[in-house]
Amino acid sequence: MKYKIVFLLVFSTICKADDGYRLWLKYDLIKDTGKRAAYARSTQFIVLNSTNPALKTAAGELQTGLQGLVGKPVPIVASAGGKTGGIVLTINPNLPSINDEGYQITSQKTSLSIAGKTGSGVLYGVFALLRQLKTGQSIDQLSLTSSPKIQHRMLNHWDNPDGSIERGYAGQSLWKWYELPERIDPRYRDYARANASIGINGTVVNNVNASSRFLTAEYLQKVAALANVFRPYGIKIYLSVYFPAPKTIGGLKTADPLDPDVNKWWADKANEIYKFIPDFGGFLVKANSEGQPGPQDYGRNHADGANMLARALAPHKGIVIWRAFVYKADPNADRFKAAYDEFKPLDGQFEKNVIVQVKNGPIDFQPREPFSPIFGTMPQTPLGMEFQITQEYLGFSTHLVYEAPIFKECLDSDTYAGGQGSTVAKVIDGSLHDYQLTVMAGVANTGSDRNWTGHPLAQANWYAFGRLAWDHTLSSESIATEWVKMTLTAEPQSVKTVTDLLLKSREIYVNYNTPLGLSRPWTGVHFAPEPWQNRSSRPDWTAVYYHRADSVGLGFDRTAKGSQALLQYRPQVQRQWNNPETCPLPYLLWFHHVPWTKKLSTDRTLWDELCTRFYAGADSVGGLQKQWTSVKKDIDPETFADVAGRLATQQKEAIWWRDAWVLYLQEFSRLPIPAPYKKPDRTLKEVKELVDIYQLR
Amino acid sequence: MKYKIVFLLVFSTICKADDGYRLWLKYDLIKDTGKRAAYARSTQFIVLNSTNPALKTAAGELQTGLQGLVGKPVPIVASAGGKTGGIVLTINPNLPSINDEGYQITSQKTSLSIAGKTGSGVLYGVFALLRQLKTGQSIDQLSLTSSPKIQHRMLNHWDNPDGSIERGYAGQSLWKWYELPERIDPRYRDYARANASIGINGTVVNNVNASSRFLTAEYLQKVAALANVFRPYGIKIYLSVYFPAPKTIGGLKTADPLDPDVNKWWADKANEIYKFIPDFGGFLVKANSEGQPGPQDYGRNHADGANMLARALAPHKGIVIWRAFVYKADPNADRFKAAYDEFKPLDGQFEKNVIVQVKNGPIDFQPREPFSPIFGTMPQTPLGMEFQITQEYLGFSTHLVYEAPIFKECLDSDTYAGGQGSTVAKVIDGSLHDYQLTVMAGVANTGSDRNWTGHPLAQANWYAFGRLAWDHTLSSESIATEWVKMTLTAEPQSVKTVTDLLLKSREIYVNYNTPLGLSRPWTGVHFAPEPWQNRSSRPDWTAVYYHRADSVGLGFDRTAKGSQALLQYRPQVQRQWNNPETCPLPYLLWFHHVPWTKKLSTDRTLWDELCTRFYAGADSVGGLQKQWTSVKKDIDPETFADVAGRLATQQKEAIWWRDAWVLYLQEFSRLPIPAPYKKPDRTLKEVKELVDIYQLR
Repeated sequence: MKYKIVFLLVFSTICKADDGYRLWLKYDLIKDTGKRAAYARSTQFIVLNSTNPALKTAAGELQTGLQGLVGKPVPIVASAGGKTGGIVLTINPNLPSINDEGYQITSQKTSLSIAGKTGSGVLYGVFALLRQLKTGQSIDQLSLTSSPKIQHRMLNHWDNPDGSIERGYAGQSLWKWYELPERIDPRYRDYARANASIGINGTVVNNVNASSRFLTAEYLQKVAALANVFRPYGIKIYLSVYFPAPKTIGGLKTADPLDPDVNKWWADKANEIYKFIPDFGGFLVKANSEGQPGPQDYGRNHADGANMLARALAPHKGIVIWRAFVYKADPNADRFKAAYDEFKPLDGQFEKNVIVQVKNGPIDFQPREPFSPIFGTMPQTPLGMEFQITQEYLGFSTHLVYEAPIFKECLDSDTYAGGQGSTVAKVIDGSLHDYQLTVMAGVANTGSDRNWTGHPLAQANWYAFGRLAWDHTLSSESIATEWVKMTLTAEPQSVKTVTDLLLKSREIYVNYNTPLGLSRPWTGVHFAPEPWQNRSSRPDWTAVYYHRADSVGLGFDRTAKGSQALLQYRPQVQRQWNNPETCPLPYLLWFHHVPWTKKLSTDRTLWDELCTRFYAGADSVGGLQKQWTSVKKDIDPETFADVAGRLATQQKEAIWWRDAWVLYLQEFSRLPIPAPYKKPDRTLKEVKELVDIYQLR
Repeated sequence: MKYKIVFLLVFSTICKADDGYRLWLKYDLIKDTGKRAAYARSTQFIVLNSTNPALKTAAGELQTGLQGLVGKPVPIVASAGGKTGGIVLTINPNLPSINDEGYQITSQKTSLSIAGKTGSGVLYGVFALLRQLKTGQSIDQLSLTSSPKIQHRMLNHWDNPDGSIERGYAGQSLWKWYELPERIDPRYRDYARANASIGINGTVVNNVNASSRFLTAEYLQKVAALANVFRPYGIKIYLSVYFPAPKTIGGLKTADPLDPDVNKWWADKANEIYKFIPDFGGFLVKANSEGQPGPQDYGRNHADGANMLARALAPHKGIVIWRAFVYKADPNADRFKAAYDEFKPLDGQFEKNVIVQVKNGPIDFQPREPFSPIFGTMPQTPLGMEFQITQEYLGFSTHLVYEAPIFKECLDSDTYAGGQGSTVAKVIDGSLHDYQLTVMAGVANTGSDRNWTGHPLAQANWYAFGRLAWDHTLSSESIATEWVKMTLTAEPQSVKTVTDLLLKSREIYVNYNTPLGLSRPWTGVHFAPEPWQNRSSRPDWTAVYYHRADSVGLGFDRTAKGSQALLQYRPQVQRQWNNPETCPLPYLLWFHHVPWTKKLSTDRTLWDELCTRFYAGADSVGGLQKQWTSVKKDIDPETFADVAGRLATQQKEAIWWRDAWVLYLQEFSRLPIPAPYKKPDRTLKEVKELVDIYQLR
């Protein structure tokens, strides 16, 4: 008997081993038998009376989900035939109170209805219902109505044709270009499911440092094969374009956006693309940025370039997403100001199917940045948001950083563009300036690693991005709780603990990495601490450019006395930040060069406060480790060990960051490390030697 | 009732989905109930009375395997307690008739004994027994004795620290350097299991274009963490070394192998390594090859370099594997000759813990090469074999090429070094010249793809390499049959069909890619056909260097009238190849420049024969597709679709190869394509344009 039990346990463990592949879409049998019985009453069958592909997909997903969660067969039928206790899926273009992608879930006694204006809407409703079950919520008397606040909720993949991912830390590109279009990796479908479950409806599959090969027929057939997998999940495909493609693949002598032949080439190319992919989304463009070619090479401006592409795509209803990530290699300029200076004068000059995609902050996805000043201007041009989900500056797939607080901090920032309450969220959801085109994009953290994101808990960032793109009013905490319940455990205390450690993680990272408004203390691949780095092909690719440490103090004066970048904000915003006495500490060194001995609002000097942050930040990782250990009994063993291992590495690296900063800055401050903190076990030389090892060929 | 059955089927399908991760080690319940019952009688328990780690590993693997295959619990006990029907695992250092890694499996009535001189030997015996079960063979009256013929049976991973794999087509590097040593990916263990199951006992984890960082303490602790996972599976870890490491990490001014400080540095470094990894295997070295630094930079020779390292490792019983892959960028030289010319004069000058690792052929892993002439010389220096498993020149992970015939063709070649019968196999297994050190290495095709090798059927190449390293007398066919039965299906007709298509695949590829002794018609990443390529930084990196097409004919004259490379072989070998009338066609253009109109032994002219090969080769892929379709009912659906997709791409690319060669060579031959073959649907210009697309940035 004992052996039999052992055998069965072994067998069931084999089937339930959790390598993270299923993300937050695990449809394991619900343990709470009471809840399960309640769910079973209203989920006995699914009524599908349509051949709409997204609706069929919705029905299939709902069936798979329910059968797993509730543990009973759930047939899909064409009609309820008078029975109750089922779920009816309906497309009704006339539904009030939702938009084209919204859903309405309502209960009528023991039947449920999931309705939308389109198949996509119903699909999102299905995932919302499954979310209800997976987070243990009641589905009796259900009334859930929701519409996405942003039209184009997108991932940007910086994937290269050779399979590498720029700033990717979770494996290789998911897109197997050598195998497409003949071999369709089953993983493409699971990618689509995951995205649809969080409302993502668009994806750019190639790097913004683009290869023109993607616009050739040879590659368009590969892209079309991907589009075919994504389409039933409501996801459109987009491509990053290489601005000189008319030359590299068209054989033209120029790529001047005002040249008629160039315009014709793009128009013909658009026609060709839409033959392959009738619902192609459009183009994402990085131009005249970091050495990428663009319209300025021909004496034209961003609007000229964007509008040419826009005219080519307009007959097909495609859009142009033109990135505002520009900065000149001028040692006397403040990089902070560059995007605003280049784009503000172009306000109102873009075609109506163009949107300008702006990074959340003015530099480049630092652990904390003030919101980009562009969001406070350009009322006549649709502005889209570009967040980074992949952890380029946030510790790759080693450091735990839950990013919803980063996204929310930006979204909730008040630009004062239309008076108080003109949050960035209201800018980008179109409500402040009545934009007709809205976009939220996330630079993806997904790759071919089994669990998609490298760090198991980094799945929460992909999840959070999607949820916020749908509804930016959701809180970081509620999203974290959802994800934890769906992915890790339903045990209330452990849910609470893991949610808590997720919520704390960002600030802990900031404390040991870039506290008090420091930024960009890296070069190279952005892995190791290098705040001393002062050699690069451009000044704004050194670390010293950003922190400006000297014998007086630390930080970048961006006030009227300094680079004047602060003046790009509305007066009400300037007033928040322009006085070093009152500027909130998280932003202090973004805007001010502060003396080491200056007393801050915490009653500590700048130097002492910095040391406190570095040391407390590094120590706090130990707290995360303890919290994680405390939930061990409720976590899948493989997942538990994976995260525990990474936390151990994070602890080691947090101390490395602390030691690097403290020993380096001490050379300028010439002050002792304050009690109770002990000086590092190693010298600055030893810290640097470790950094050098990671840069050996 | 119907619903219940559906549910159970769904549940069991979910558990049995086959993504290829388990390789040939699937322990699914044996379907043949008769065989299963027979197996069950002698596998009721496992007797383990030892704490030897490899033996414990062996017992655990045997238990897992038996429980899956036979479907009953199989407890591990310290003693049989008088019962029969179990398996006894024993280490006995005095066993006759096997070597240190061999095993002896014997039946006594209904008990089985697996014995070896070491824990590793028993582990190999366990895998052999499991192989018996998985290939449906009887284990009654079993008597299996086997010892490996080669001491060091190794994989070489050309993996870089950033996770990329040079010439890798199955994902990223398995080794997660950012996570080590704190987080141990469970995959490391499955890697070790897979290798142990085919007798592989050593692995070099970093690229031969080496980073010196691997020799730092920071990385040695990471490498040690890997070694700890591998050790219970009998696998030693080795590192590729960067010859100037004394300068790059030691701060010395030179890396001259005769410099006393350099020698001391290496000796100290070896001591350090062995503190981290007490059973470290040794160093693999690429030096003075393709621009890599080496002893020649200091006016020294390969033996000087190798011996310095050898002296450093000798006290720790480590070995030095020094690669013979060298060639100078001299447009007047024949690359074929370079390795022999550099190494032969050094025969007998190497320390006894040095082995010279030689690629199977004199150029570089082409689809067919004559055996390297080095194998016919250097009786006083151990020579090891380097095969390539990853398909750098064999179509990446798209084209089906079963490589055992390539390995066997080389191993069975007669060098005549000691008279007739002096096969390459006898050279490298040490029996011909009484080498004390023997190595067979395979440049691995493994990466982080779910199924490890990209193309599902490419697993058979990893498998075949291991089996041949253990016993080079095995046939390509028997190995293929084993692998098919263990991995895909046991159905006899389908086993036969799949084995057949595997066996045919190499020659089919040769026919459309490089027939009649052509070689190296690529540049760049070695993907697209480029026989016209005549521009490179070195002449021997062009394509035209190799085929030498002109108005007279095709091929490279390596006879006494030409480059004289043939003279590097023994006279008996030269006689086989030096006459264009009698040279076997597979090698013809390796050694002769043959006129287009010359009649060959097939009664066709060279031109007609080439066309026949190109066209028949491309057509034959259709035959592979038909054979694969015919076994569909017996293959896991996901695996079936995966291979079918790749075969479709292979068909398309085979035609591309055919068109490229035929249209290009026709410019020289000026002859019509013979009936019944139809000229290509496209022009040479169009073929080239397609190639160019794959080379756009």
